[in-house]
Amino acid sequence: MPPFTTRRRVEFRDTDAAGIAHFSAFFVWMESAEHELLRAAGVSVIDRGPDGLDTSWPRVSASCDYTAAVRFGDELDVAVTVEIGRSSATYAFAFTHAGRAVAAGRVVAVRCLMHPGRKPEPVPIPADIGARLAAYRPQA
Amino acid sequence: MPPFTTRRRVEFRDTDAAGIAHFSAFFVWMESAEHELLRAAGVSVIDRGPDGLDTSWPRVSASCDYTAAVRFGDELDVAVTVEIGRSSATYAFAFTHAGRAVAAGRVVAVRCLMHPGRKPEPVPIPADIGARLAAYRPQA
Amino acid sequence: MPPFTTRRRVEFRDTDAAGIAHFSAFFVWMESAEHELLRAAGVSVIDRGPDGLDTSWPRVSASCDYTAAVRFGDELDVAVTVEIGRSSATYAFAFTHAGRAVAAGRVVAVRCLMHPGRKPEPVPIPADIGARLAAYRPQA
Amino acid sequence: MPPFTTRRRVEFRDTDAAGIAHFSAFFVWMESAEHELLRAAGVSVIDRGPDGLDTSWPRVSASCDYTAAVRFGDELDVAVTVEIGRSSATYAFAFTHAGRAVAAGRVVAVRCLMHPGRKPEPVPIPADIGARLAAYRPQA
Repeated sequence: MPPFTTRRRVEFRDTDAAGIAHFSAFFVWMESAEHELLRAAGVSVIDRGPDGLDTSWPRVSASCDYTAAVRFGDELDVAVTVEIGRSSATYAFAFTHAGRAVAAGRVVAVRCLMHPGRKPEPVPIPADIGARLAAYRPQA
Repeated sequence: MPPFTTRRRVEFRDTDAAGIAHFSAFFVWMESAEHELLRAAGVSVIDRGPDGLDTSWPRVSASCDYTAAVRFGDELDVAVTVEIGRSSATYAFAFTHAGRAVAAGRVVAVRCLMHPGRKPEPVPIPADIGARLAAYRPQA
Repeated sequence: MPPFTTRRRVEFRDTDAAGIAHFSAFFVWMESAEHELLRAAGVSVIDRGPDGLDTSWPRVSASCDYTAAVRFGDELDVAVTVEIGRSSATYAFAFTHAGRAVAAGRVVAVRCLMHPGRKPEPVPIPADIGARLAAYRPQA
Repeated sequence: MPPFTTRRRVEFRDTDAAGIAHFSAFFVWMESAEHELLRAAGVSVIDRGPDGLDTSWPRVSASCDYTAAVRFGDELDVAVTVEIGRSSATYAFAFTHAGRAVAAGRVVAVRCLMHPGRKPEPVPIPADIGARLAAYRPQA
């Protein structure tokens, strides 16, 4: 199965006075591509439990390497894969523009119970969610 | 009493590919200056009631007129006044750079009870909050 | 002719701790909808002249009235019209969610020659651009 | 010499619907802290050469690890160090809130000549800039 792919356009607000997309914009694009993958897989970004507690995916790390600048109006293709651990989901993002690699990012999110005013509590990823996301794991 | 004043620097992320501060950045500066005024006045931005319901200040309108561009690194002086109605607070913001007017904005916020999943319910501004904010009203 | 319409999803970064889309996000959506209309009309957002000078559309005012909150994941329909003056383009934006009005915005942009380090110089909107944009003017 | 330190407040726009600062906000804070360090060191963020070409610091990688959530109004202390290579500057950022570590970030920037419309060209960091930044290197 090919990786999940989506597309983002560099909007004017994404640019900076150097005339290129700001490096922080890639992190926002990564998150919205992650959410698009979750919607495609039929997985909720936020689940409200019967006890009123939300289960969500706070991130524990994020990184991006930049190999080429992109500019206002450019369309970026984003390929996304995800690897599932016991509680964690590790997303990899490959950004290309006109077929050329421009950036590669990585986000680690952990499935957690969100107790109001307390530290998020990691919980195992349910089997059905793991199964849905397995379709998007990186190919050997 | 002179108006409440604060200062903001144009950060790189605030700029765009035209080399100037993006017009939307002024709305973010307005809100953070409003919150700084509230803190100076000893007024909470969000009050949690004994029933667990929050009272806050959702905005019903926002506008800005731009008279000069500002650039990365520029320091902006922001003068803020506020006029209080029964439930509403109308903020006016005058942005200057090196003594020259660059933008003038206005935000109308309404004090509301925030019922989860329902429309915010306007409530009267308590007398003590009105008294604290009276110090910052526009001068004739 | 019906107004130009497009669609935006409320991304997670567009929300705030009140659980709703931040009021400043609407200004970013307005600009990207404006640029989408310009692309549809075959009008450049930025024109580089033979003298190397850019002609663009700095904004002189922006405003928005909010009538309902929108939340993470909501899809917004945006209807856009534009009225052309000698140098100015006045855009009106109607945001709806599930058929219900949530916000109405307005942006005035002025066609200008962008001299580096100097104030933008307003210039008349060329007849061919005016003709292309006439298709998107508000209906009586 | 102690590391360079500065302070940032979590503004409302920095938060998201999970009620905490959005992970992408840390990258914007890193850049503004980097620029504050450069200003303190007397080093320009952007140098315009006699040939009209700018020399600046595009980033080649950025990362952040998150250990605790921060909320609207929280004040963050940011400690910054920088290590200089031939062309590169590697910044490390330690974010604490009320004395507790909340995030640790890293940005690698490369000094480059910015040719319009071409790939940035790495250039050696001038000795005087290296000397000014040496004061901020990590302590053994």
